[in-house]
Amino acid sequence: MSKTSAGHFFEDYQIGQVISHAVPRTVSGGERALYHALYPARGALYSSDEFARACGLPGSPVDDLIAFHIIFGKSVPDISLNAVANLGYAAGRFLRPVYPGDTLTSSSEVIGLKQNSNGKSGVVFVRTRGRNQRGEVVLDYVRWVMVRKRDPDAPAPETLVPDLPQVVGAQDLTLPEGLDFTRYDFAAAGEPHRWGDYTVGEVIDHVDGVTIEEAEHMLATRLWQNTAKVHFDATFRPDGKRLIYGGHVISLARALSFNGLANAQMIVAINAGAHANPCFAGDTVRAWSEVLDRAETPAPGVGALRLRLVATRGAAGILRGEDGKYHPDVLLDLDYWVLVPR
Amino acid sequence: MSKTSAGHFFEDYQIGQVISHAVPRTVSGGERALYHALYPARGALYSSDEFARACGLPGSPVDDLIAFHIIFGKSVPDISLNAVANLGYAAGRFLRPVYPGDTLTSSSEVIGLKQNSNGKSGVVFVRTRGRNQRGEVVLDYVRWVMVRKRDPDAPAPETLVPDLPQVVGAQDLTLPEGLDFTRYDFAAAGEPHRWGDYTVGEVIDHVDGVTIEEAEHMLATRLWQNTAKVHFDATFRPDGKRLIYGGHVISLARALSFNGLANAQMIVAINAGAHANPCFAGDTVRAWSEVLDRAETPAPGVGALRLRLVATRGAAGILRGEDGKYHPDVLLDLDYWVLVPR
Amino acid sequence: MSKTSAGHFFEDYQIGQVISHAVPRTVSGGERALYHALYPARGALYSSDEFARACGLPGSPVDDLIAFHIIFGKSVPDISLNAVANLGYAAGRFLRPVYPGDTLTSSSEVIGLKQNSNGKSGVVFVRTRGRNQRGEVVLDYVRWVMVRKRDPDAPAPETLVPDLPQVVGAQDLTLPEGLDFTRYDFAAAGEPHRWGDYTVGEVIDHVDGVTIEEAEHMLATRLWQNTAKVHFDATFRPDGKRLIYGGHVISLARALSFNGLANAQMIVAINAGAHANPCFAGDTVRAWSEVLDRAETPAPGVGALRLRLVATRGAAGILRGEDGKYHPDVLLDLDYWVLVPR
Repeated sequence: MSKTSAGHFFEDYQIGQVISHAVPRTVSGGERALYHALYPARGALYSSDEFARACGLPGSPVDDLIAFHIIFGKSVPDISLNAVANLGYAAGRFLRPVYPGDTLTSSSEVIGLKQNSNGKSGVVFVRTRGRNQRGEVVLDYVRWVMVRKRDPDAPAPETLVPDLPQVVGAQDLTLPEGLDFTRYDFAAAGEPHRWGDYTVGEVIDHVDGVTIEEAEHMLATRLWQNTAKVHFDATFRPDGKRLIYGGHVISLARALSFNGLANAQMIVAINAGAHANPCFAGDTVRAWSEVLDRAETPAPGVGALRLRLVATRGAAGILRGEDGKYHPDVLLDLDYWVLVPR
Repeated sequence: MSKTSAGHFFEDYQIGQVISHAVPRTVSGGERALYHALYPARGALYSSDEFARACGLPGSPVDDLIAFHIIFGKSVPDISLNAVANLGYAAGRFLRPVYPGDTLTSSSEVIGLKQNSNGKSGVVFVRTRGRNQRGEVVLDYVRWVMVRKRDPDAPAPETLVPDLPQVVGAQDLTLPEGLDFTRYDFAAAGEPHRWGDYTVGEVIDHVDGVTIEEAEHMLATRLWQNTAKVHFDATFRPDGKRLIYGGHVISLARALSFNGLANAQMIVAINAGAHANPCFAGDTVRAWSEVLDRAETPAPGVGALRLRLVATRGAAGILRGEDGKYHPDVLLDLDYWVLVPR
Repeated sequence: MSKTSAGHFFEDYQIGQVISHAVPRTVSGGERALYHALYPARGALYSSDEFARACGLPGSPVDDLIAFHIIFGKSVPDISLNAVANLGYAAGRFLRPVYPGDTLTSSSEVIGLKQNSNGKSGVVFVRTRGRNQRGEVVLDYVRWVMVRKRDPDAPAPETLVPDLPQVVGAQDLTLPEGLDFTRYDFAAAGEPHRWGDYTVGEVIDHVDGVTIEEAEHMLATRLWQNTAKVHFDATFRPDGKRLIYGGHVISLARALSFNGLANAQMIVAINAGAHANPCFAGDTVRAWSEVLDRAETPAPGVGALRLRLVATRGAAGILRGEDGKYHPDVLLDLDYWVLVPR
């Protein structure tokens, strides 16, 4: 039995430790087709080679969130197999598009540790990096998770909480080489709204809702080689429910946001994110967005929008109650930067 | 909220109007693999590059109905988002096979309008065309849908009901360039029956049945980027049921018809089609076919059969009651031309 | 109605008869992506082109069990459509990896016949061979099934029970050309355990469990073009249950065995296999393995392990009761050879 992994516990992590996550992965048109079957994704840049070429790219990349999910999924056995909760994201930067044929690897560096006052668990902060087959970093983000201790009597490590930016600065966004939206085809993309048409504070209800089935979220989560048993084993939780991978809700909400944000093409940064409440099969997920900020970029015809994307169960539009806590029907509160034609 | 689309209403359409539908789509082996997972499709020409090359094609195209679904799906946000019913198809012609790597676009021309006597809705006739990345038309068909009016007091347009053929004439069928069935491998295709073995009036019960799950029809419908909410949102209809996309039933019935029609390889025309009754998850779908006509073609070794394909819930073989109306368990009545080795 | 196939019956088979199964199939990255979505498969050699090239292969093959399922699926209409039970496997040898772009065909030779004493059915033994587009055999295995007679009064054939090896001898294993594990990257593969770390008699509980949904096993079974109606038609069995294709359980158990056997990369032989009890949607499947034998191989850095892989419903670890019969919660008992870095 000793050959199987029980995952790491809080006392196993050390500041500066770098973990190379297992199982490199080559992506193909198969992952793209599945992404389109699993989510109502319609972003033209990720759907058409011709559209992408007209925007200065060599072809249509796979959806940014495919890269995110694959790189995240690889980190699960080493980081979050014994996680009590996935607490947050910061400083996420998408540095290069991923194309069919690319092979992704993932590694994480421990950048913060803080034992909880109960002595039974602690918070681990990791910076996870995804690289392609040329060793180029394609994605870099920080997440922190609460991890159980194996031995409650293990000594607490020195507390180090990393200094994380609340927002990735617009000047720190990395734009894909060659990206050019000056000949952007708004009709092909699906909506006429340009960067300049969005105002800070504007709220968009994305209208549509999708009811989730068990088979769908399990297909998706396995596709990213994320094997956390809570997503797959109906006997694991006392209530017999399978918890839906938080990334499934991110992709679903992002795809739903097409209706109103069809031109919000490329995610370039994740500033912050919270899985506010658990999501289960049978939930009907809706989404709304708020424009948080706008920035110009050096790429021709390309502007950036900072958006809040909120996924809800039931009616859209809600966020927090009077107590300042997330409404129990809020599933996701994501803060990200996206590239939009000007 | 104004940035999201509520779709078009009856009074928004004008005769001669051409709508370019959004989101071009590049297909790959991924879409083909998913088609094989979603439907029991076994047509050899769409399964094997070697078989297709032996038939004079450069490789195995994607299933004709993949092209149909993608081109149809793109038209949904502009044509049928507010449709009360998808009333019929006519004059559908498949003009060129679609291969992995091709990028499809879709546009529709309004060719007919007829307000209903109740003044609250009307029938819109459109000719939808799908093109590949070279601008070549790959599919051209007419459909008509009943669309609600936004404003019941909007004036009725002048009525124009297009003159549509009941059947695409055999002489108007377009055969794929190079198609040659003289070296057709019947053993590899799965059945010995040639074009000459089928007689007009012959009825074939395709034997097998498939019980549909919610996850399956939603994966399929999303794959075609068809986003009509009635297919996905369990809270949309008062009965809590998700209506299955009619095209899902077409593909399922066509795939089931392999048993008895394994050599009915390429769909070249859709003469007519009716989604006779709604289909829901849990239904067990069966299919039967009737040979309606036969025609020779100029391509070597290639004949054409005109077939009626009927999908039923429960027992196959049924069509209409004594009152001339479709039996409540009939889901689809499709009239099409298909190419068969002679 | 005569154009549809009712499958073959016991009295239709003759010793020496060779049946070419229908519908050649070209595989792509689409089948691989779907395999990763359907099963928690993480073997590095089947996930990454770079990893596979570092092991001396031209690229990442598709999972060995994809080849098995496709070649098996093609034999179903000719061999097991009227099967009462799939009784066993023997002498299975994987002779060449299958790569995206390859086209597979399948044929079976009848090598044994034995009518049952009740006169109503009999056992048919077939050797099934899968070939690629160059005619090279990629997989060769024997299975035997119990098949109903059409006519109970048909005369019994002369009984011939083939002499089958209990185990494929280690010297008869065929290693992929060029395979070299001397530069094997254990960190990338996910575990440090080498061939020499496994001892005969060692038992590994693979920890994880997966609850199966109807949509998943039907997607999988259709993907292999296996059309046996018992898997798809909820009206077929009196209890309204759809029997899960035994190969779905094989792939699920093999993927679960990654936890403890991450370096058990390539299946080279199937010595024996029994689908001990039927599996249905809702079952939570777990797996355990036992090391049965070890062998050296001539390929650099490559050893072979003979493993028993057992899939169970509920708790892992069980096999047979005191009466020697399989425990009712045992689903699969598979005996196979796999290649492991030394």
